Amino acid sequence: MRSTQSDVSGGIRDEQIVAGHGAGGRKMHRLIGEVFLRQFGSAELRRLEDAAVLAGPGCRLALSTDSYVVRPLFFPGGDIGKLAVCGTVNDLAMVGAVPDCLSVAMVIREGTAVEVVGRVARSIGRTCRSAGVRVVTGDTKVIERGEDEGLYVNTTGVGRVAPGVRLGAERIRRGDAVVLSGGIGEHEAAIAVARGLYGFRSRVKSDCACLHRLVATMLRAGEIRMMRDPTRGGLATTLNEMADASGFGITVFEDRLPVRREVRGVASLLGLDPLYMANEGKVVAVCSRTSAARMVRAMRRRADGRHSAVIGTVSGRPAGVWIRTAAGGLRRLMMHEGAQLPRIC
Amino acid sequence: MRSTQSDVSGGIRDEQIVAGHGAGGRKMHRLIGEVFLRQFGSAELRRLEDAAVLAGPGCRLALSTDSYVVRPLFFPGGDIGKLAVCGTVNDLAMVGAVPDCLSVAMVIREGTAVEVVGRVARSIGRTCRSAGVRVVTGDTKVIERGEDEGLYVNTTGVGRVAPGVRLGAERIRRGDAVVLSGGIGEHEAAIAVARGLYGFRSRVKSDCACLHRLVATMLRAGEIRMMRDPTRGGLATTLNEMADASGFGITVFEDRLPVRREVRGVASLLGLDPLYMANEGKVVAVCSRTSAARMVRAMRRRADGRHSAVIGTVSGRPAGVWIRTAAGGLRRLMMHEGAQLPRIC
Repeated sequence: MRSTQSDVSGGIRDEQIVAGHGAGGRKMHRLIGEVFLRQFGSAELRRLEDAAVLAGPGCRLALSTDSYVVRPLFFPGGDIGKLAVCGTVNDLAMVGAVPDCLSVAMVIREGTAVEVVGRVARSIGRTCRSAGVRVVTGDTKVIERGEDEGLYVNTTGVGRVAPGVRLGAERIRRGDAVVLSGGIGEHEAAIAVARGLYGFRSRVKSDCACLHRLVATMLRAGEIRMMRDPTRGGLATTLNEMADASGFGITVFEDRLPVRREVRGVASLLGLDPLYMANEGKVVAVCSRTSAARMVRAMRRRADGRHSAVIGTVSGRPAGVWIRTAAGGLRRLMMHEGAQLPRIC
Repeated sequence: MRSTQSDVSGGIRDEQIVAGHGAGGRKMHRLIGEVFLRQFGSAELRRLEDAAVLAGPGCRLALSTDSYVVRPLFFPGGDIGKLAVCGTVNDLAMVGAVPDCLSVAMVIREGTAVEVVGRVARSIGRTCRSAGVRVVTGDTKVIERGEDEGLYVNTTGVGRVAPGVRLGAERIRRGDAVVLSGGIGEHEAAIAVARGLYGFRSRVKSDCACLHRLVATMLRAGEIRMMRDPTRGGLATTLNEMADASGFGITVFEDRLPVRREVRGVASLLGLDPLYMANEGKVVAVCSRTSAARMVRAMRRRADGRHSAVIGTVSGRPAGVWIRTAAGGLRRLMMHEGAQLPRIC
């Protein structure tokens, strides 16, 4: 085996793109760091937050973008349209912004039934109305027929950040609490079952939902340092991102993690770990120790936060994520290398 | 032949998506009107402008989105990265906004060389620096291998609209002048040649360029009613959109239309009409008759406006576009039904 210069430097430029480059884990972080940040990094982009906060005269704006390539297009608990609205609304909410408006850009394959496009559009409209956001601009492109039917959706959202809201990894302190808004792994479990490749059924539904109203409750109730929605790569990956960005260690307690029985069932049948399974309607927040209990009480009063819990604490350095198992052991939770399932969002 | 109810109502919901639904012409306008506006229309979206202008406290923001699916990824005069920056910068410029920042979302096929992704990223970075905009947030998704290698890019841009700038079809008046910033059809001709399917070579290059500085000159020099960049569907389609939106007729003079010799050559070999061929670095503006000559003089002082000309006038009602041919005849220019070439942007 010959070690080329690019192997030595850890460069990835001789590689080919694989599913893992889109899976939220270490491969994707390398692609972003070594290619995208190097070529078009800005102060905002380098923060690698869910949304950029732009300081403007008189108002702070948040901007966030996501493309959605989920298959199947329709699944228990949601569809690509609902996901495209909720996902971007949530990314705005994670930086403390009140979502205001969205762009919607569709790339559609030739041969897709207009009826399917219409159902996705109806879902986008319904989700926007229920979330209180509006679509203000859009784009439509058509690409050739292929093995991969249907459409992709990009939504980009603009929100406004209230003057008092200050969030970021640099605000995290030793002793802070880690709060999670409910059960993990539901979205990925629902997608896995909906693909129908596994010869079993389950009643699990995606948790796909807009979180901005729950987040507004949280911002009022407690002192939040930083928030993320644990999507691709799951809770373990998101906690690693928080640990890396803050430089602190995070310890979570296995017996405090809410996981629905149906998710445990799907995960064990497929050999997946709920800690690495994607969520589309959950928020994990680091908040001050003194405000954690108050915040969880406020969250539990809402239907979308009923299963909220303090799941961990911020320990000292070094950065990293550990899990205290139910049996009392301590094990490191690494950021995963690639996907568990491809195209879950 | 049986006439179904949906045929009678002109509905498109029994149809399948074809290339023409993404080509900027009548098919796309029907899809937008009967599906997207019906399901998620907002006041801003219904204007069908290149960008939405959002009235906010203290500042007017513009938001515009476009997905880019052009093939090949690299072509004479540009590449998908440069196009993705210029295209969205231009859409912002068309509503009189000063472009500020962009989101960049990539959907990449498995098997694409990271080196190719890197070249696109480098082009995005270079074009942003030269345009004075920055990428503040992004997203990366990976989809399976397929016949269609490479990547798609979505850029969504935010700009600021100066307080004095008021543009819109409702400002167009009879007797206004139509100004064009240079030769038509260059982008589509370059893409056609770059596909290499036609067994000939040509020196034609895409006109892909950012227009916001030229537009700033135009806004200072003349009284602009409305601007568009004539991309998919070409100048004829854009003029039809302006006529439809204003309710006025527009007449252009064939002998005043700048068309490069290389474009004429490619167009005649392929049976294309330059009037319907896409541009990616041209602006067409309706301005007051009294300011047209002054504006064209100011535009011609710039390299990117050297071939600017008054190409037509706004006539009375009904709405529609006519061309006065070199021989003196008058012929109607319809909006085309579908694409000339698919995936040109």
